[in-house]
Amino acid sequence: MNTGIPMLAPLQPQFANRLAAFRQAMQQANQQAALIFGAENLRYLVNYAGEAACVVLTQHSVALITDYRFEAQARQECAVAQNGCRVICRDRDQQRLGEALALEFAAQQVSRVWYEAESVSVQQWQLLQQDLSAFHFSPCLPVLTSLRMVKDDWEVVQIQRAAQIADAALAQTLPLLQPGITEIDFATELEYRLKKLGAEALSFATIVGFGARSALPHALPGTQRLKKGDLILVDFGAVVNGYRSDMTRSYVAGKADLLQLQLFQAVQQAQQAALKAVKAGVSASALFAISDQVLQRSEFGRYAGPGLGHGVGLQLHEQPFLSPGNELKLPAGAVVTIEPGVYLPNYGGLRLEDDVLVTAHGYLQLTKAPQQFALEC
Amino acid sequence: MNTGIPMLAPLQPQFANRLAAFRQAMQQANQQAALIFGAENLRYLVNYAGEAACVVLTQHSVALITDYRFEAQARQECAVAQNGCRVICRDRDQQRLGEALALEFAAQQVSRVWYEAESVSVQQWQLLQQDLSAFHFSPCLPVLTSLRMVKDDWEVVQIQRAAQIADAALAQTLPLLQPGITEIDFATELEYRLKKLGAEALSFATIVGFGARSALPHALPGTQRLKKGDLILVDFGAVVNGYRSDMTRSYVAGKADLLQLQLFQAVQQAQQAALKAVKAGVSASALFAISDQVLQRSEFGRYAGPGLGHGVGLQLHEQPFLSPGNELKLPAGAVVTIEPGVYLPNYGGLRLEDDVLVTAHGYLQLTKAPQQFALEC
Repeated sequence: MNTGIPMLAPLQPQFANRLAAFRQAMQQANQQAALIFGAENLRYLVNYAGEAACVVLTQHSVALITDYRFEAQARQECAVAQNGCRVICRDRDQQRLGEALALEFAAQQVSRVWYEAESVSVQQWQLLQQDLSAFHFSPCLPVLTSLRMVKDDWEVVQIQRAAQIADAALAQTLPLLQPGITEIDFATELEYRLKKLGAEALSFATIVGFGARSALPHALPGTQRLKKGDLILVDFGAVVNGYRSDMTRSYVAGKADLLQLQLFQAVQQAQQAALKAVKAGVSASALFAISDQVLQRSEFGRYAGPGLGHGVGLQLHEQPFLSPGNELKLPAGAVVTIEPGVYLPNYGGLRLEDDVLVTAHGYLQLTKAPQQFALEC
Repeated sequence: MNTGIPMLAPLQPQFANRLAAFRQAMQQANQQAALIFGAENLRYLVNYAGEAACVVLTQHSVALITDYRFEAQARQECAVAQNGCRVICRDRDQQRLGEALALEFAAQQVSRVWYEAESVSVQQWQLLQQDLSAFHFSPCLPVLTSLRMVKDDWEVVQIQRAAQIADAALAQTLPLLQPGITEIDFATELEYRLKKLGAEALSFATIVGFGARSALPHALPGTQRLKKGDLILVDFGAVVNGYRSDMTRSYVAGKADLLQLQLFQAVQQAQQAALKAVKAGVSASALFAISDQVLQRSEFGRYAGPGLGHGVGLQLHEQPFLSPGNELKLPAGAVVTIEPGVYLPNYGGLRLEDDVLVTAHGYLQLTKAPQQFALEC
């Protein structure tokens, strides 16, 4: 009964390219191997979407280590990548992970190893060290962060599909935004339609805030009921083949009053100003400044949110972060959210968020739900 | 439109008791303060359910440090705990977390600090160390793990509600298990009903496997369609006030053949044998052995899963783990899953899982969906 867009298998050459790029960076850093733990990075490098695994990568080999629970899944998924990834199934009762890693490092004759310090806990790392004293570890440079920032065509299509599903689900659910519905019921109906339209999961727990609760940047939906005149904030997304969309729309239940209209216009103008400036080469901080200037010149400057957006892909929040301090220049192929917002405590908040693909001369908008403000109630 | 069981606010005295028990352990270990990062532990200690926060606890103070995104939520939720927790809102652009921590440690005049080494990444910890060289850190003993293992009455009620919601959602969705439905559509319908009945979230991504896919211990639902004669495995749960249920049922679409019937009986007998032995004082490994013996004496011994179950509460998988190597004795008040399973590669798997509260003389079963095997199709 899923009427959504069919999901395509990823294209194999990508995976070989990603390994090649990573190996080049490893060589430049004079490292012989890398130990990768992050779930998104395992998916990116070898197409593995399960849990409880890590990857050991050298110039001439790549292996994923997991246990019986994920062995079948790992063999199936890593085979799709067609980049030579072996699957090693460890017996957790007989062999510590550190022992399995030591065997693999020794077999590959490597001693200088990059490891992903951001994806392993201090406790887990101390445990591993017991078996790994023969090897020299240093924290991995953010190579995968940089690689993953530039989406290839296949990745863009996945985010686009996730955005299309979100647009369609919102259009189907919007008529339910009538006085009396609770935040949680609207969220449940929206999530149901996302799934029915083909989302494999939700990008994150859907945010729905009515009235003053719309000012809470991360409000989980509650039993609050919609009243005529309430501001409404809905922030949600779909996942397709691991890739996420992220969109916010703000509404008013019925006719907007003057203050609400001014809020909406200020935020919409801030978003438009930022969008106009999006293209490869612009810095993250410059984009923020452009949008923030519009808000600071409005009546709501002191209530403006402190960031403009973030990269989105396998992770919901990834580089480039569109924040005041980030001098990173947006590359073509980055997918970012543009989401200015204004939050008046105890009154309400208003945010408009779209996902755009950065191109050489501008951008391609991926989320397309209309920015209608006043809802007929 | 949520017709589910209403959610109660937690009882305040619990939170004071938890802090007192933790402080006692801290003192016995000659530590003056503790730095807690784990989301479940923050919820357990100060009722905070958001993200991006940590708690600093001393003998005479408790403070939660977060930033603007979660400040309002933190003030509201920590106030409920009524155990004196202050909320410190850090400006992320002006102050590193390490600086905020150093200020708090200095203000509380402490230098020997426990930290949760399992809940902080190597990278994050190295960053924090830059500002914290004046303090002596040692990894926290698993005090919270032990405390959280014994559920108080309020916690048991939450898990019971989560189990009741799961039972009711399954009963409502079961009629849809007819030839032609896909795994993903059944999962979507089940999840929708969980939410409508009052689940604040899903315990985990629902597992639905038809036919041979039922043998994959952690199969995500796909587009496989149900055929008459297929084995069916459904593993899912609801969350209520942060507490999780976890239940598996196995079915056959239509009349079971002899092999399927033998599989079902072996697993059911293994579960019954384990349940009969559940009571305070029995060791985790002994429970596993009792259940495993039944499976080893059946025709399916070599296909038996290597564990019997796990504790469940704020985390889906927590102590006590019912595994061969675990000599821990089950305390009264533990809530554990009893879930023997048999998995025949390329044929199918069968698992029965229930959540039970361990009592002085036996157990109280929390999940109650009938263990019906053959579905009318």
